[in-house]
Amino acid sequence: MISIVILGTGNVAKHLYDAFSATNQVKILQVVGRSKEKLAVYSKLSEVSMDYGNIKEADVYLIAVSDDAVNEVSQKLADKKGLVVHTSGSCSLDDLSPIQRKGVFYPLQSFTKNKKVDFKEIPICVEAAQKDDEIVLKQLAHLISEKVFNISSEQRKTIHLAAVFVNNFTNHLYQIGSEICDENKIPFELLHPLIKETANKISVLNPHEAQTGPARRGDKITINNHLRLLENKTHKEIYSLLSNSIKKDYEQKL
Amino acid sequence: MISIVILGTGNVAKHLYDAFSATNQVKILQVVGRSKEKLAVYSKLSEVSMDYGNIKEADVYLIAVSDDAVNEVSQKLADKKGLVVHTSGSCSLDDLSPIQRKGVFYPLQSFTKNKKVDFKEIPICVEAAQKDDEIVLKQLAHLISEKVFNISSEQRKTIHLAAVFVNNFTNHLYQIGSEICDENKIPFELLHPLIKETANKISVLNPHEAQTGPARRGDKITINNHLRLLENKTHKEIYSLLSNSIKKDYEQKL
Repeated sequence: MISIVILGTGNVAKHLYDAFSATNQVKILQVVGRSKEKLAVYSKLSEVSMDYGNIKEADVYLIAVSDDAVNEVSQKLADKKGLVVHTSGSCSLDDLSPIQRKGVFYPLQSFTKNKKVDFKEIPICVEAAQKDDEIVLKQLAHLISEKVFNISSEQRKTIHLAAVFVNNFTNHLYQIGSEICDENKIPFELLHPLIKETANKISVLNPHEAQTGPARRGDKITINNHLRLLENKTHKEIYSLLSNSIKKDYEQKL
Repeated sequence: MISIVILGTGNVAKHLYDAFSATNQVKILQVVGRSKEKLAVYSKLSEVSMDYGNIKEADVYLIAVSDDAVNEVSQKLADKKGLVVHTSGSCSLDDLSPIQRKGVFYPLQSFTKNKKVDFKEIPICVEAAQKDDEIVLKQLAHLISEKVFNISSEQRKTIHLAAVFVNNFTNHLYQIGSEICDENKIPFELLHPLIKETANKISVLNPHEAQTGPARRGDKITINNHLRLLENKTHKEIYSLLSNSIKKDYEQKL
């Protein structure tokens, strides 16, 4: 049985809490957070506290707070004997600077409030300052996921950068698509199946093979028609830049 | 029983062929194409022909060829009594110029060879020059899909433009993500669950609500770190332009 304390009450904290609660090999001793309201969700089944000066002794401390609060929260754990890990894609191991037994437990997923995810499929990237602690983290990760990876802080930086492209920027393209639909009184729902299929396709084709569209074909007529249709200056710029980038990829590799 | 002839042997043709074959209210009289090899797939169950001068009489002709060949193929059907439709997102009704009874039957999806799709969920956008023909097309569409919409050529142009953003450009972002992973010896598969979840999220949150990431938070430190990490000049430009576009969206709407 591994005992843990979760620090934070956001989406990552909640999803990790739920995932660990569903196993019988982890005891969640305490959830610590600043918001009384958010802590109420956990108080039926676990001890909760708003007092960062009164954190229980545990095997592992999971810091699941916003990136800029990771270091501050880790200061509160400086005198603990347990292993202290953060769950952030962009913070490094050194952001837990005062801690000796430190590590990272980064579930590579975008969590949404009240939307269940299949944790078994979520890659968990672990890293620890000490070899023994790495073993503990892998053990812990395997309790909730089938995909556990040793990832260094350096590698995690790269993964986080790639994630910005495939998640944050992709979502922004959905946003632009939805604006184009709204302006023309077309329900954005019409595009939902296409969006999902585009994402699902990566299981069977790599993105280079999967690429289609006017830029891929070098279809200048359609590209110019589209640029004329776009009224928003930024959308025009994005259309041109991405089309040129696609064209370049296929010219080079012909 | 509606009788149809399919012209073309690409992905759209094959997926429509399979979908209509699975109903018992459509008789596929003939598949016409230029490639003997591709026609062989259909020849066990249907009549096939490479001769565009020898097309059978049918209720509906489905032209499923590349955009730039739509008009040429429609010329071959100028003397037919049946309803002639194309299946393209970017061609207009007028691209079937010599035809009197003309229409559009556009399944809004990206089809991949050998990858099955659930046709029931695919929006089918129909349009016809004559009201009676529109009824026939809706009837035909409802045989394979639960989502049938009357969409004008003007609206379809907009949908196609929005589709370029959410499908073609999104796939290109996946490509950039995969290059960043490759350069750093990280398996791109690590990002697959994130990609799928980003797409699935649109069912519960609109993209404006779903937006996360450094640009959304106005986190200049992370943005500058990422720009330093990126070596490819075009990737840097794309990162900057999309980040600025996200920032602008949230500044305006605060």
